[in-house]
Amino acid sequence: MLAGLPAEIGLYASILPLVAYAIFGTSRTLAVGPVAIVSLMTASAVGEFAAGGTLDYLTAATVLALLSGGMLVLMGIFRLGFLANFLSHPVISGFITASGLLIAASQLRHILGVPGGGNTVPEIVGPLSGQLTAINPVTFAIGTGVLSFLFFARKHLKPLLVAIRIPVRPADMMTKAAPILAVGVTVALATGLNLGARGVALVGEIPQGLPTFGVPAFSVDLVSALLVPAFLISVVGFVESVSVGQTLAAKRRQRIDPDQELIGLGAANIAAGLSSGYPVTGGFARSVVNFDAGAQTPAAGVFTAIGIALAALFLTPLLASLPQATLAATIIVAVLSLVDFGAVRRVFAYSKSDFAAMAATILVTLGWGVELGVIAGVALSLLLHLYRTSKPHIAIVGQVPGTEHYRNVERHPVLTAPELLSIRVDESLYFANSRFLEDTIAAYIAERPDVRHVILMCSAVNAIDASALESLEEINRRLTDAGIGFHLSEVKGPVMDRLEITRFLQHLNGNVFLSQHEAVNTLTSGGLPAMSVPKP
Amino acid sequence: MLAGLPAEIGLYASILPLVAYAIFGTSRTLAVGPVAIVSLMTASAVGEFAAGGTLDYLTAATVLALLSGGMLVLMGIFRLGFLANFLSHPVISGFITASGLLIAASQLRHILGVPGGGNTVPEIVGPLSGQLTAINPVTFAIGTGVLSFLFFARKHLKPLLVAIRIPVRPADMMTKAAPILAVGVTVALATGLNLGARGVALVGEIPQGLPTFGVPAFSVDLVSALLVPAFLISVVGFVESVSVGQTLAAKRRQRIDPDQELIGLGAANIAAGLSSGYPVTGGFARSVVNFDAGAQTPAAGVFTAIGIALAALFLTPLLASLPQATLAATIIVAVLSLVDFGAVRRVFAYSKSDFAAMAATILVTLGWGVELGVIAGVALSLLLHLYRTSKPHIAIVGQVPGTEHYRNVERHPVLTAPELLSIRVDESLYFANSRFLEDTIAAYIAERPDVRHVILMCSAVNAIDASALESLEEINRRLTDAGIGFHLSEVKGPVMDRLEITRFLQHLNGNVFLSQHEAVNTLTSGGLPAMSVPKP
Repeated sequence: MLAGLPAEIGLYASILPLVAYAIFGTSRTLAVGPVAIVSLMTASAVGEFAAGGTLDYLTAATVLALLSGGMLVLMGIFRLGFLANFLSHPVISGFITASGLLIAASQLRHILGVPGGGNTVPEIVGPLSGQLTAINPVTFAIGTGVLSFLFFARKHLKPLLVAIRIPVRPADMMTKAAPILAVGVTVALATGLNLGARGVALVGEIPQGLPTFGVPAFSVDLVSALLVPAFLISVVGFVESVSVGQTLAAKRRQRIDPDQELIGLGAANIAAGLSSGYPVTGGFARSVVNFDAGAQTPAAGVFTAIGIALAALFLTPLLASLPQATLAATIIVAVLSLVDFGAVRRVFAYSKSDFAAMAATILVTLGWGVELGVIAGVALSLLLHLYRTSKPHIAIVGQVPGTEHYRNVERHPVLTAPELLSIRVDESLYFANSRFLEDTIAAYIAERPDVRHVILMCSAVNAIDASALESLEEINRRLTDAGIGFHLSEVKGPVMDRLEITRFLQHLNGNVFLSQHEAVNTLTSGGLPAMSVPKP
Repeated sequence: MLAGLPAEIGLYASILPLVAYAIFGTSRTLAVGPVAIVSLMTASAVGEFAAGGTLDYLTAATVLALLSGGMLVLMGIFRLGFLANFLSHPVISGFITASGLLIAASQLRHILGVPGGGNTVPEIVGPLSGQLTAINPVTFAIGTGVLSFLFFARKHLKPLLVAIRIPVRPADMMTKAAPILAVGVTVALATGLNLGARGVALVGEIPQGLPTFGVPAFSVDLVSALLVPAFLISVVGFVESVSVGQTLAAKRRQRIDPDQELIGLGAANIAAGLSSGYPVTGGFARSVVNFDAGAQTPAAGVFTAIGIALAALFLTPLLASLPQATLAATIIVAVLSLVDFGAVRRVFAYSKSDFAAMAATILVTLGWGVELGVIAGVALSLLLHLYRTSKPHIAIVGQVPGTEHYRNVERHPVLTAPELLSIRVDESLYFANSRFLEDTIAAYIAERPDVRHVILMCSAVNAIDASALESLEEINRRLTDAGIGFHLSEVKGPVMDRLEITRFLQHLNGNVFLSQHEAVNTLTSGGLPAMSVPKP
């Protein structure tokens, strides 16, 4: 219902997709199915195309699952699992926090018993303020009652039960069953007091039976409108699923294969699309239940699917009288546990650029929706990374006395010689920083008239691209004109292999040394002289 | 005329902009004015908005100059000169080659004397084949004649003149004057034989006088349609101009300031926009003439402006009878010198990813136009760079015998000990590669049951972001569980500063060593044992 779909669609999405993942996936404990964030993204994607609840809306959600499944399978075949690495931890964490807040906000109207909708905080919250007079008091009482009970249960129920001498394990299970208790009590209340007639919104009739199987009717317009959302749902769903899968696999010293996971998730989504479902992915809560219950093989997924099929056949009438406010309250309590402001604080303390990406993700997600939120976060984190590498840290180094180790003259007491300038550039040399290196070396030389040799210590240079090669040629030309030797030291194997196929090494007026120490020894004929002054 | 504008607009764009640049720019020899590539980009941008030659077209070109000027000034104020660094050499070189080919192709119709147009190779060449019967034979004769003469002059005229005992310097000047000779002869032919009446397209009347000064009439629609092209013209023009400026400045050991250059070029473009001109930038050919003539101060630009103003006032009638075919032939010969297939070959040999970015730039520019060409080149070069850093080179290292230097076991004969695993990761640790590092270390450990200590040698790690910090925590947790010590060595100052504000160093089960040698000495209690086997 979070996705704006009838309740039975959620059940349908929990049957065949589980079987498909059991066949193609690699995790032994991952449980796929509808999850909160993907549901929210589905609502946002489909909502722009069709009005909620209509047949078109249903078709669009199904087509979205098919598209997303096809993309995931293709990404798996082309081994594009690495794409998920471009979603940084702060962006993922910010996105989850913002989605939790968005989902909670979207459920407020069910607690208040007023109409509403929307995919961003302004869209959701704006209309609510004008409807405070239209609040249904009974709905509001049920909603806030369940909400208070669930928050209480989460924080205090287990200690309380343990205090009255109930053993820890049953106390734990009773605490986890609190939402079921809330559902039971409010269903009984709604039936007994006939609350439906008093304007309390109920879940209503859920059709009994199994999903129909078939390809949804779709148009080219629909498909092209859903391409971008389907891609974002695929990537976000994959990242969520792989994170859960890897965390659980590591606990048992097992491994999962990200590229095969793409195919497993893709198969699950295609199964969802062909059986009247909507996009699914591996969820944290359901996977942990699976893991705790001792699932050892993919058969656990198949048994779950059978259980849900039986529920769809026989148990749905029990939920017809469930107040929507109860459902909203359980959703709010569940998703608010995703909100992690502590992570925001920690990231702020550690890295301002990571924090910027995280803050952008949160703000854009809340203000402009989930799709733009992910895009803004990824784009900003990549741009900030590139900006950083375009102005690398460059240190002048000297010898740590008594060792063959060379470190920054500004941080360590080291030996140097005035005729020798040893520069360590702390970045791979590529187009974004090659001009910066030219400028920096030119400035150093201008300040130090005694310098006869420049040694570029390449221990941190992991690649030299065509642009940087031209810059090195240019630096060599300028130093040669000025009568200064230009040498390289500690050039790594893969970088040296590249340089050897160019003419640069023939143009170079100096030498390439295996180590910085060898370079200094050779150029000062036997080590740094005794009179060289240790710098602070 | 390459920009699809009347000839006098080119003159107008060569008066006030030169004065504005002389006031705000930093190069002493750079000559701004209309250049081929920016003209082509102008034609492409404005052509989509208005039909060539109409008043709207003129207004759009003027507004484009104003917009571009405003953007350049803003970029200068916000010190965004570094943005130009993201255009790699291969992308720039590929873009110039493709633009040269495009411009040459666009001039073919003037040589043939047939109508046409278009901004991409398919658009330009497609219609030509259907018009081979409509070729104007006199135009064709003039075009091919001038073309042959100019190609001959470029290759053979100077040696020929020297062979008949003309001194080198006058021979050089006479060679450079070949286009003027071609213009003079064809103007005389056109006037004498009244070629205009025989269907030969002439340049026609160019209004005598100075540009009118004022803000062009523009609409919001026009401005928003031109925003993206104006940005691309600004960046490409800036890169071209700064390259020329830096090359010439380096020859005289002078320096230019890229951020101030942005303001200088911005002022020049605003001046162009206010005086009926179109976008300008620093051009290579005209700047070299300036440099060779001995320009030492910005006053050279002011004198050039005065000369062109006088030409606009008094010399334009002389060009009315110039055949457009002559003009087209001189353009073709000039721009084909920009085409550099040698650079494509060199880049291919050096780096396949640089070559991919270059090839994409060339193909997209030729097939889909200059704007998409630049965008495709920049996007692809950034993506390939990020892809490379997401799967970094990781080496297991050992001690080079007799030194304190540690290198890759697969490339050098080095000493190792079975209980010690020294890993050097050749990349900054950030979100795109943090999971890769986790996986690699897990795989190494699984293969080596004897390992008791892992030393991560961080000489090439220039930054650790929040995602990578979480990965290091995770690696530390897993190694601790497995009873293996986890140590860092050669952590750089800026990276260490960051780590010290986190809890990671308290969680770390091992130590941080200043040098790899110190780490090995400490963990093996006094150096690698004698029985350790040198590996090939």
